[in-house]
Amino acid sequence: MAKQYISVRNLKFLLHEVFNASEVTKFPHFEHIDKEAIDMILDSAMQIADNIAGPIAQEMDRKPSEFANGKVTVHPDVHKFIQAMGEAGLIGSQASLEVGGSQLPETVRTATGFSLTAANNSIVMFTGLTSGAANLIATFGSEELKNTYLEKMYAGEWQGTMCLTEPQAGSSLHYITSSATPLEDGSYKIRGQKIYISAGDHDQTENVIHLYLAKIDGAPAGTKGISLFVVPSQRIENGQFVDNDITTIGIYHKMGQKGTPAIHLQTGAKRDDCRGWLVGEPHKGLMYMFQMMNEARLGVGLTGAAIASAAYYEALEYANERPQGQALSIKGQDPNAPQTLIINHPDVKRLLLFQKAVFEGSLALILQCAKYADLAHVSEGEQKENYNLLLDMLTPVAKAYPTEMGIQAVSAGLQCFGGGGFCEDFPLERLYRDIRITSIYEGTTAIQSQALLGRNVTMKNGKAAMLFFQEVMKTIQEAKTYDELKKYATALEEEGQKLQKVTQHLVGFAMKGDLERFLADATLYMEYFGIVCIGWQWLKQGIVSKQALLAGKSQGEAETNFYESKLHTMRFFFAYEMPKCYALATRLTDDEILTLATEKAMIN
Amino acid sequence: MAKQYISVRNLKFLLHEVFNASEVTKFPHFEHIDKEAIDMILDSAMQIADNIAGPIAQEMDRKPSEFANGKVTVHPDVHKFIQAMGEAGLIGSQASLEVGGSQLPETVRTATGFSLTAANNSIVMFTGLTSGAANLIATFGSEELKNTYLEKMYAGEWQGTMCLTEPQAGSSLHYITSSATPLEDGSYKIRGQKIYISAGDHDQTENVIHLYLAKIDGAPAGTKGISLFVVPSQRIENGQFVDNDITTIGIYHKMGQKGTPAIHLQTGAKRDDCRGWLVGEPHKGLMYMFQMMNEARLGVGLTGAAIASAAYYEALEYANERPQGQALSIKGQDPNAPQTLIINHPDVKRLLLFQKAVFEGSLALILQCAKYADLAHVSEGEQKENYNLLLDMLTPVAKAYPTEMGIQAVSAGLQCFGGGGFCEDFPLERLYRDIRITSIYEGTTAIQSQALLGRNVTMKNGKAAMLFFQEVMKTIQEAKTYDELKKYATALEEEGQKLQKVTQHLVGFAMKGDLERFLADATLYMEYFGIVCIGWQWLKQGIVSKQALLAGKSQGEAETNFYESKLHTMRFFFAYEMPKCYALATRLTDDEILTLATEKAMIN
Repeated sequence: MAKQYISVRNLKFLLHEVFNASEVTKFPHFEHIDKEAIDMILDSAMQIADNIAGPIAQEMDRKPSEFANGKVTVHPDVHKFIQAMGEAGLIGSQASLEVGGSQLPETVRTATGFSLTAANNSIVMFTGLTSGAANLIATFGSEELKNTYLEKMYAGEWQGTMCLTEPQAGSSLHYITSSATPLEDGSYKIRGQKIYISAGDHDQTENVIHLYLAKIDGAPAGTKGISLFVVPSQRIENGQFVDNDITTIGIYHKMGQKGTPAIHLQTGAKRDDCRGWLVGEPHKGLMYMFQMMNEARLGVGLTGAAIASAAYYEALEYANERPQGQALSIKGQDPNAPQTLIINHPDVKRLLLFQKAVFEGSLALILQCAKYADLAHVSEGEQKENYNLLLDMLTPVAKAYPTEMGIQAVSAGLQCFGGGGFCEDFPLERLYRDIRITSIYEGTTAIQSQALLGRNVTMKNGKAAMLFFQEVMKTIQEAKTYDELKKYATALEEEGQKLQKVTQHLVGFAMKGDLERFLADATLYMEYFGIVCIGWQWLKQGIVSKQALLAGKSQGEAETNFYESKLHTMRFFFAYEMPKCYALATRLTDDEILTLATEKAMIN
Repeated sequence: MAKQYISVRNLKFLLHEVFNASEVTKFPHFEHIDKEAIDMILDSAMQIADNIAGPIAQEMDRKPSEFANGKVTVHPDVHKFIQAMGEAGLIGSQASLEVGGSQLPETVRTATGFSLTAANNSIVMFTGLTSGAANLIATFGSEELKNTYLEKMYAGEWQGTMCLTEPQAGSSLHYITSSATPLEDGSYKIRGQKIYISAGDHDQTENVIHLYLAKIDGAPAGTKGISLFVVPSQRIENGQFVDNDITTIGIYHKMGQKGTPAIHLQTGAKRDDCRGWLVGEPHKGLMYMFQMMNEARLGVGLTGAAIASAAYYEALEYANERPQGQALSIKGQDPNAPQTLIINHPDVKRLLLFQKAVFEGSLALILQCAKYADLAHVSEGEQKENYNLLLDMLTPVAKAYPTEMGIQAVSAGLQCFGGGGFCEDFPLERLYRDIRITSIYEGTTAIQSQALLGRNVTMKNGKAAMLFFQEVMKTIQEAKTYDELKKYATALEEEGQKLQKVTQHLVGFAMKGDLERFLADATLYMEYFGIVCIGWQWLKQGIVSKQALLAGKSQGEAETNFYESKLHTMRFFFAYEMPKCYALATRLTDDEILTLATEKAMIN
């Protein structure tokens, strides 16, 4: 493994210089946090990443989680990791102080998640799922549920999961059939099957708390009849654990993230005695779950960016160490010339800059979303609503771009290694396998794209979209005050305007009621939107870097190189990625639609 | 596994209707072959693919080749496969009748290779490498070498390999250090190490014949001092096998193609008694090897297309069987409506059409190259030279496009399965892993791109490039005679002209001696060139399909659908892929170069 998997300097640049975390921590809600505390929290996450998570990343892949004799086993250090995360307050990082959480700003939480995920993207799923599950109980659960579960979960003693998918209901939760029958004591009898339940069963915690979607008997059809339940693997009766009749039917053999088991569960299979407790009100389960899912989507985007970061530092280290071939400038002129380092080959540099442009741009976009979440938290009235709209608007983009392009970035990293990239001698082949799931789970890219175009662009009469374009324009105006950035500001402005025109063109179909035509190429619309967003984030980073260099803030060569490299990567993004918008705009305004339902016979 | 992994109808369409194989088989060299014989050969390859290769594809991945107790073991059916291939004359398919080969046209050989590789891309490496090694001996070896090796190799009794790469010399063979010391009996003592030797050692044949690059003591530095040797694992003395002192040091653990061992070999490690026999003249080894490598490059391109074909038919079958969600046109209107098949979602159709456009277009380009090889074979004088120039010109493109875009296509196939695509329940995750090596071995995409732009475009004063553009223009002119095709012909013409301008722009730097600037973005030039080539191949297929439909050739619905689907996929390629040229042309003519050697500090 390379010596480095993230840049702490870059995290601090983004947190303090670009997104100015202290703007939020001055508010009462976050007053227990200051700049020094932030850096300490980052540091404690890095300690866990360096000492527990990172060292077993390869091993968790080589010896994947297993299901044998009715037991699911995972790497024995998972327990140590979960405990350390609990002790550091990182499982409850988002939860309020009053329920035992750390009440951290989202920006800070995101930064810690980035480090930990880059070190070991498989192990963080254990604690990530516990956080998500516990936060649902904290937000929507009764006092009794909170008292029963939160302390144990935030401490890392109990595992949490999300049980959504069923064999017949994957992308479309509309069709779930798990049932909940009311019992006299106020609990429900749960019957059904759930698939792909990450960390759904394992030997490292004494209890697993499932947040489970099911339909109460007689509930309305479709998504409006879905309720949310807490379904523990061990329920508590008279202070004792009682087996809650949840059976692990099987484990999925996955291409990547092998250290985290994905479980096929059946509830009530043994003696029809699986109990669940309703969270919040009946039939509102999907709404509750969506709150968590939006966070989970950002989390998956972050996973994409973090894996791409790890791959980048692997490739960078290798490129600086591996001699191969002669530099193009002297090639063939001297057969006795020594080999050059591969970083001196322009194509290797292109592969590296592509990776850096993608994952640093992605991380910035995700932190931008986190910042909106924080600002929404400390704001009131229309301001609060606006920040929430911006967060909603960008969430699918911050899920889709970092994962889709992260997959490409890791592939570029693998390519730097030549044949070695395909072999287990380097972690690239693992990272390449691991990241592939990210554009699928928590809603595929197609689902994210339909949310972006089909819902977000038009919501509140287009207010969210308008707010977004205003934000981008603010950055463009500021960039234009620096000569060196004008060219890029103008390019972004042009693409932004074109994107608005394309949007209007497409919304026209929706207004005519032609939803199929409206959304046919939603995924390409997402690609376009993503490039504009990342261009915006690079311009933002360019401004801050330019300011730092002009103000002479950068002390020493390393600091100057840091800011210069930011500007260089920004230029790279505009030179190599931004031109792709043209093809997308052309496609999205083309009359020839070739993928509608009527054309099934065209594929054979 | 899906019922289908290739379309025999499409193979016959390409062989007989588009590339008119009988145009070649009327010449004396191929007179033992006619249309009936071609279909029989295709059929015998399909028999082996269906009955031996296909059924063990998953198993070879799950139980990969192993190295233990000094022995390399592979799947026990590999022997049966190699034997069947030998008996069917498919190991010697390219070799002349006089050395015991089948002397098939390249087009036919390519078509059989496509079927077999789509069925099991790992197992075909065993016989593919034997073919390549034997063909080198057949072409450049002495009578004695031919007599000793060819019969056994073409019969599938002995394995062949290619030993090029060394730990310090991967992409740059310039730096190999394996040595050959002349002995009195005319043989050479071989000392050195070779890595990534596919099928370099295993338990399914009694001998392994390495075609081995080494430097004769005192040879000139660099590539001009490399010679080619036959180095068997068992040499023959007095009619007996004698161990030839080749040691397997280790086996690579690969992400994919796990059924075929990649070996780290050492020669002369045990008792300094490894013997090799020179092939052809001293110091010409790389030139000889390059003949084989050009074929191998087309073979790797074919592997990309074939894996993408297998992935496509898996995804197509799944899309036609899996219900999920409601059609966009009725979404949300009726909560009780049943789920629709996912093929009815435009985005799934887009993913499928993308795959089909990529792999059928790729296969056509590779067959185009094969056709040029066949025409060169049966032609004389300038015509022969021209066909060879066209073949040379397009070979790197036919390696790079099918592999780079094949990787994307398989990824699109995987995406159709949602979470299932990430799991071993379906073959997609295996195909996704398998195909990733194809853009690396036999020269990475960067190497192919440098060959295309740095060598081929300018060779013979640009004659090869001129011939290529003439070929494209012929297709454009013909397409313009059909109203329905005019739009696409014009689009291709415009892109072709733009590509020529971009080429001139870049060649300008070469003429000024600025090689680094000339080749900095060669990989993007390749991408551009590839899209134009595949657009050309789709237009070609479009013309033939249009003609068939107009002539009423298509009898029955299936035939009409076949030709209509061809036209539909052509339209898709022009609508979704061709617009990407704009970004590439913009990039390639941009003044801002960000990847030159001077900018090393810009990456951190």
